[in-house]
Amino acid sequence: MKFILNRNVFLNELNVVQRAISSKTTIPILTGIKIELSQEGLLLTGSNGDISIEKFLPKENEKAQLLIESTGAVVLQARFFGDIVRKLPEELFTFEVLDNLQVKISSGSAEFVVNGIGADSYPHLPVIEEENQLKLSIRVLNKIINETVFAVSMHESRPILTGVHFTLEAEKLLAVATDSHRLSQREIPITDVSQNFDIVIPGKSLIELSRSFSDEEETVEINIMENQVLFRTENMNFYSRLLEGKYPDTKRLIPASFNTEIEFNAPSLMAAIDRASLLSHEGRNNVVRLSIQADEVTIYGNSPEIGNVQEELTFKKVSGDPLEISFNPDYMKDALKAFGAIDITIKFISALRPFTLEPTDNGLSFIQLITPVRTS
Amino acid sequence: MKFILNRNVFLNELNVVQRAISSKTTIPILTGIKIELSQEGLLLTGSNGDISIEKFLPKENEKAQLLIESTGAVVLQARFFGDIVRKLPEELFTFEVLDNLQVKISSGSAEFVVNGIGADSYPHLPVIEEENQLKLSIRVLNKIINETVFAVSMHESRPILTGVHFTLEAEKLLAVATDSHRLSQREIPITDVSQNFDIVIPGKSLIELSRSFSDEEETVEINIMENQVLFRTENMNFYSRLLEGKYPDTKRLIPASFNTEIEFNAPSLMAAIDRASLLSHEGRNNVVRLSIQADEVTIYGNSPEIGNVQEELTFKKVSGDPLEISFNPDYMKDALKAFGAIDITIKFISALRPFTLEPTDNGLSFIQLITPVRTS
Repeated sequence: MKFILNRNVFLNELNVVQRAISSKTTIPILTGIKIELSQEGLLLTGSNGDISIEKFLPKENEKAQLLIESTGAVVLQARFFGDIVRKLPEELFTFEVLDNLQVKISSGSAEFVVNGIGADSYPHLPVIEEENQLKLSIRVLNKIINETVFAVSMHESRPILTGVHFTLEAEKLLAVATDSHRLSQREIPITDVSQNFDIVIPGKSLIELSRSFSDEEETVEINIMENQVLFRTENMNFYSRLLEGKYPDTKRLIPASFNTEIEFNAPSLMAAIDRASLLSHEGRNNVVRLSIQADEVTIYGNSPEIGNVQEELTFKKVSGDPLEISFNPDYMKDALKAFGAIDITIKFISALRPFTLEPTDNGLSFIQLITPVRTS
Repeated sequence: MKFILNRNVFLNELNVVQRAISSKTTIPILTGIKIELSQEGLLLTGSNGDISIEKFLPKENEKAQLLIESTGAVVLQARFFGDIVRKLPEELFTFEVLDNLQVKISSGSAEFVVNGIGADSYPHLPVIEEENQLKLSIRVLNKIINETVFAVSMHESRPILTGVHFTLEAEKLLAVATDSHRLSQREIPITDVSQNFDIVIPGKSLIELSRSFSDEEETVEINIMENQVLFRTENMNFYSRLLEGKYPDTKRLIPASFNTEIEFNAPSLMAAIDRASLLSHEGRNNVVRLSIQADEVTIYGNSPEIGNVQEELTFKKVSGDPLEISFNPDYMKDALKAFGAIDITIKFISALRPFTLEPTDNGLSFIQLITPVRTS
């Protein structure tokens, strides 16, 4: 196996595949990156057991300047290999597998010889079934991820909650995440789909996935297999395991009627919550209090050791009963961040019941729920 | 005490003073920042016992929009105070000391009330003696710091080596740092100076000092007091304690005659050393080997577990005996970084004796020394 390649093009491929590689794995071969050269181009594979990424560099890619002298495969320690290629002196480098699986990487007058591992011992990735497919624009998929993944649980005590629940039913794709204190749910219409599904994808996989897409690519094909999901673009296969178990029924959590409603501009509410949380972060209870009156809406934060803060909030519209309610400002900040720079409506039942946040102009296709904190 | 002030101007002052404040201090009042308002302007003071910084904002500063309603002084917890001011909603803010030393900080509709501490309990800084003064351009001082401070020792086993040794004698300012494995020495001519001195300034103080200068200021006045040095610019007083004890006599360390000399372009040697050190960092001995022949100069690095690297180096000129020498590549990289983008000359006696690096065109006013590593 021997090839010549453009260093920077190769580094871009390598950076994506390295997202899947962890130095902490218990399976030694997975600390390596698999490099396979065929007459069609170069395939890089990385995996940590939960996520696997395959990235293909076709020989037609002109920027890559790929010159294939002989085909083959080898596994190299990912950690050093990236550093070596990054620091090579010239634009092109030569990669050659020597005897004893040693690999010679040379560029200009610099020549590295590093120990490789046989590619045969690298685990095989699942075979792709083409039945259960769904096509999405990467922009839409990234939006759904950003709108939900922050609300997954960070605790392994209920592993199923560390994932985002995706269901496809009646031509609607529903994504829900909850850590049992707050919930975020996004729905989008989907047409032209072969089969319904109900899966839970680990939050960590979704975060890595959304970072792995390259800017040129526009759509992604989603293949659901047993225990696995594959996100497939023209030159990347991103596999994630699925979480096993039954996701809780979250539909019944979202209330239908409310007693108090208020509209805010999300970024200006965000800035005020951020100020109010400065001191509450220092107290034993990380809580801020919102007081809603017909003509005055005020937020309070305090820490007995440091001091207190209060701010009269600018709001768009308020209706219903007056209310005093306390909540974790970090949940509110996460929720507001997911909305971006729009107007939102917050709807309350009472001081002790979960409240909802939605875009003012956009119905129920995106809704978030936060459980208040009981004080006194 | 009450004033109105521009938030961003204030933050710039605060950021400098906060460099001196540590949350780890054993003296609780030093976790605070002292804020003193006189009819002349606002003085901020921070200290960690080793370093103290006073920053003065004169009322004449137009950008500050300082409006003095009443003078006074108070100490506030530095950690929260910076965050509060950073997040205030409007360009101006009002700062008012209430009863019980509480401080009200308000801007727009946001109002913080935080607990203050009486300024009387804040330690007094040394009184400035104007006798032992030296004026330097900040550019030159920063250059001297950057050229020497990296070579101070990080180990407290010989505390005196954690500082840079500054001596002024015969109209020459000499700065020397050594951790006993390598040494860096810079000399600059100084005229118009009242008195000679011999002091050791902690490396940490010098690093903070060079980060504290503002871009507008051009010269700094150095006052040496008992156990202290004060760096004084128009609106800043930066105090550092001095290290006590006798600095070793480093003059005798620099060899006078050599057997091998070689000239390199510093950045290109740096890149090659960087590559060679990639693998040696992984081995038990962090060592690279340089082989100098009349017509070929090669660098080698290896790690038994990973592999090896070799590179033929481009050099400007070589003379003297052939040589094989091993050294710590990190010392070499630090030294080359301090030279910047120039040509340098490295002079060797033998494989086991320290070698020197100097700018090729610049005589002995800047010289670095590295002790080789004995291998085999």
